[in-house]
Amino acid sequence: MSRNLVALLQEGLPAEAVLTDPDVTSAYSHDMASFCEAGVPAAVVLPRTVGQVQHVMRTATELRVPVVPQGARTGLSGAANASDGCIVLSLVKMDRILEISPVDRTAVVEPGVVNATLSRAVAEYGLHYPPDPSSWETCTIGGNIGTASGGLCCVKYGVTAEYVLGLDVVLADGRLMSTGRRTAKGVAGYDLTRLFVGSEGSLGIVVRAVLALKPQPPQQLVLAAEFGSSRAACDAICAIMEGGHVPSLLELMDRTTVKAVNDLAHMGLPETTEALLLAAFDTPDPAADLAAVGALCEAAGATQVVPAEDAAESELLLQARRLALTALEAVKGTTMIDDVCVPRSKLAEMLDGVERIGEKYGLTIGVCAHAGDGNTHPTVCFDVADPDEGRRARESFDEIMALGLELGGTITGEHGIGVLKKEWLAREIGPVGVEMQRAVKAAFDPHSLLNPGKLF
Amino acid sequence: MSRNLVALLQEGLPAEAVLTDPDVTSAYSHDMASFCEAGVPAAVVLPRTVGQVQHVMRTATELRVPVVPQGARTGLSGAANASDGCIVLSLVKMDRILEISPVDRTAVVEPGVVNATLSRAVAEYGLHYPPDPSSWETCTIGGNIGTASGGLCCVKYGVTAEYVLGLDVVLADGRLMSTGRRTAKGVAGYDLTRLFVGSEGSLGIVVRAVLALKPQPPQQLVLAAEFGSSRAACDAICAIMEGGHVPSLLELMDRTTVKAVNDLAHMGLPETTEALLLAAFDTPDPAADLAAVGALCEAAGATQVVPAEDAAESELLLQARRLALTALEAVKGTTMIDDVCVPRSKLAEMLDGVERIGEKYGLTIGVCAHAGDGNTHPTVCFDVADPDEGRRARESFDEIMALGLELGGTITGEHGIGVLKKEWLAREIGPVGVEMQRAVKAAFDPHSLLNPGKLF
Repeated sequence: MSRNLVALLQEGLPAEAVLTDPDVTSAYSHDMASFCEAGVPAAVVLPRTVGQVQHVMRTATELRVPVVPQGARTGLSGAANASDGCIVLSLVKMDRILEISPVDRTAVVEPGVVNATLSRAVAEYGLHYPPDPSSWETCTIGGNIGTASGGLCCVKYGVTAEYVLGLDVVLADGRLMSTGRRTAKGVAGYDLTRLFVGSEGSLGIVVRAVLALKPQPPQQLVLAAEFGSSRAACDAICAIMEGGHVPSLLELMDRTTVKAVNDLAHMGLPETTEALLLAAFDTPDPAADLAAVGALCEAAGATQVVPAEDAAESELLLQARRLALTALEAVKGTTMIDDVCVPRSKLAEMLDGVERIGEKYGLTIGVCAHAGDGNTHPTVCFDVADPDEGRRARESFDEIMALGLELGGTITGEHGIGVLKKEWLAREIGPVGVEMQRAVKAAFDPHSLLNPGKLF
Repeated sequence: MSRNLVALLQEGLPAEAVLTDPDVTSAYSHDMASFCEAGVPAAVVLPRTVGQVQHVMRTATELRVPVVPQGARTGLSGAANASDGCIVLSLVKMDRILEISPVDRTAVVEPGVVNATLSRAVAEYGLHYPPDPSSWETCTIGGNIGTASGGLCCVKYGVTAEYVLGLDVVLADGRLMSTGRRTAKGVAGYDLTRLFVGSEGSLGIVVRAVLALKPQPPQQLVLAAEFGSSRAACDAICAIMEGGHVPSLLELMDRTTVKAVNDLAHMGLPETTEALLLAAFDTPDPAADLAAVGALCEAAGATQVVPAEDAAESELLLQARRLALTALEAVKGTTMIDDVCVPRSKLAEMLDGVERIGEKYGLTIGVCAHAGDGNTHPTVCFDVADPDEGRRARESFDEIMALGLELGGTITGEHGIGVLKKEWLAREIGPVGVEMQRAVKAAFDPHSLLNPGKLF
């Protein structure tokens, strides 16, 4: 079967685009999520054209072989993990930027274009592609679309979904379908474009995307505010949002995260800091916005407020946030990063709850959060060599998701379901929701060949 | 059958919520679209609770009676038109605003809430619900969701879809499903929320919506610019957008529309005006933005540029735009309003083409456009008593849609497909697209009871 598969794949793909050497294909077995099962692919294919992708899907349908689409494998939910005997369909070689239009504020790209490559290319036209997941230097637009990626900018600019106007998609049976539009608006039929965004490669293969762009905003200025309690920091966040401010970034790091960053990078943050808030504005007069927000932080009890005066100082203040995950990884060697999003009015309760969960399980759990969105990343630090600690890490992770749901939130703000959270999806959306999601899946992929075993 | 239907409906609805008198129910037979077939409903139901909606849908499924959901019937595509023997399910009595949260910037509403009612209610909290279809004083949020409504604000604030975070939906069989979230971000499973937005009541009955809100922006200031040709006006639009400006409104009226408004309201616009551009900014310093945009208009050949100095002057300048459709209706008594959206870089070609089409068919066709979005409303003026003119109107309408598609646009930017454009949907999205749209429909509505005969 496998030999037949490879021979058939090679009929429509150049030899170098079909990889079968296990030493090579093993590199394609999983993304960056911890603790997610990953199988051994029968082959990895690296098509360069839409026609080649269609050939792969026709072959897969003919032989009933599952297909796992992949971008840069920077995902954090195992959505790109191989299953045994599957075809891994890597889109990274389809990496052309086909069009950039400053008048229409659109770009047309292939799925393998790296986020940062697109961001820099459009910047040359005075344009801005906002979605900025932490992995933006390596992750691909196709992966961003598959996972509906977020990032630091979302509090002002929203998530990937809001920038996808239209798609070309190769369906499970190899047919090509166009969805959406190239125009600013359009309501012709069901919004299948949005259905594909965040579908984790389970409905079809995105081979081209029309993306919306924004004008390049002014350079943002950052303010850092230190608080004696996470509750005071959350009060400040609520005051900022209730006050009608529109920050371009609003990030929170808890005590554990601040300490880990201090330990790693000796940034000299005071030991009394229980929470560090970072706010940024890319408005015409960011200094005025920082002053207003600084005053709200002080009113909420900030012990220190440091507004940057220029881009260099801003970058320095953001360093602490950028180092957060690395610093937390250094605590115990391994982390399990969660992605629970709650209404921002519930952020303080979420942080309190995570602290209680850490104490209950005897674990270090650091939280950094896209606070303006209520999107927390509680990060469980543990020693992978200690099975009991591993078990407690997994249990605490579940308890954190349960807390998020209890607070009216979602188990995933931006990382997705993949294999990591598929037992939890039903708890969030209920049995009717799961049934209808499965019905949609069956409509597009009747033989269940596209990324099976993910999502539900 | 009909008697049985009414008796069954009355088992779960108060007597006054089931209307069967033809003199009364005939008022519910159609929306505001011209030339769309409309049938005679067997009954009109006006539920006040989710449970009552579920009862209606269970009854409809049991008896296999089609259901046409309705809001305020201000739609322009016939999507809310009754079919013979159907149940018209009017959601207008479910009109409660359930929550408004300034911290979370969300509102939770029932579908029958009128757009303007919500807009005013959230304004009291310093919040802003941007979607502003022309019918905003009467149209309902449920209708806006069903048709994915746009409006004047979209060039800056986007369309209804971008403000719908989560839905409660009664499915065809009466089961209740929740989609989406209450949080700023969330990617748990397929985005069924967006699938329902713009689905024209064909997938389920929206009974509750969680909406995203924005902070109330500063009062906008408006600039009017007159041009000697529509091409010069389109050049100005391209220059404004290419220049990175973010107007809160960017509207264009062609010569025919300007003349019609002049004739109706004696606004004293010069007879040499071939195009009138209106731009607005709700930024912290709108006067500065108007000055910059005014300079771009002059560079593009504007014959006169009039920036408003305050809200009252701004309102005066917008009067011309607000009167446009009424004025065009006065030309020949009847209009057929189209809704073709093209990439804004193609706007000049679209306007030229519509003028050619008007000449070809010997018709007056005025165009006003949400120019910043490339969303044109070519409005065919004709005498309904003249059958030949009616036929030419319909033919010109089709030719305008064909032109829009040829220019890379869509046949509907914001009005939807309904019955008016269903022959055209397939031309836009192709046979594979239609097949997959039908598959999605079948997944949610296997007996095809929800708004049958609409969309495709």
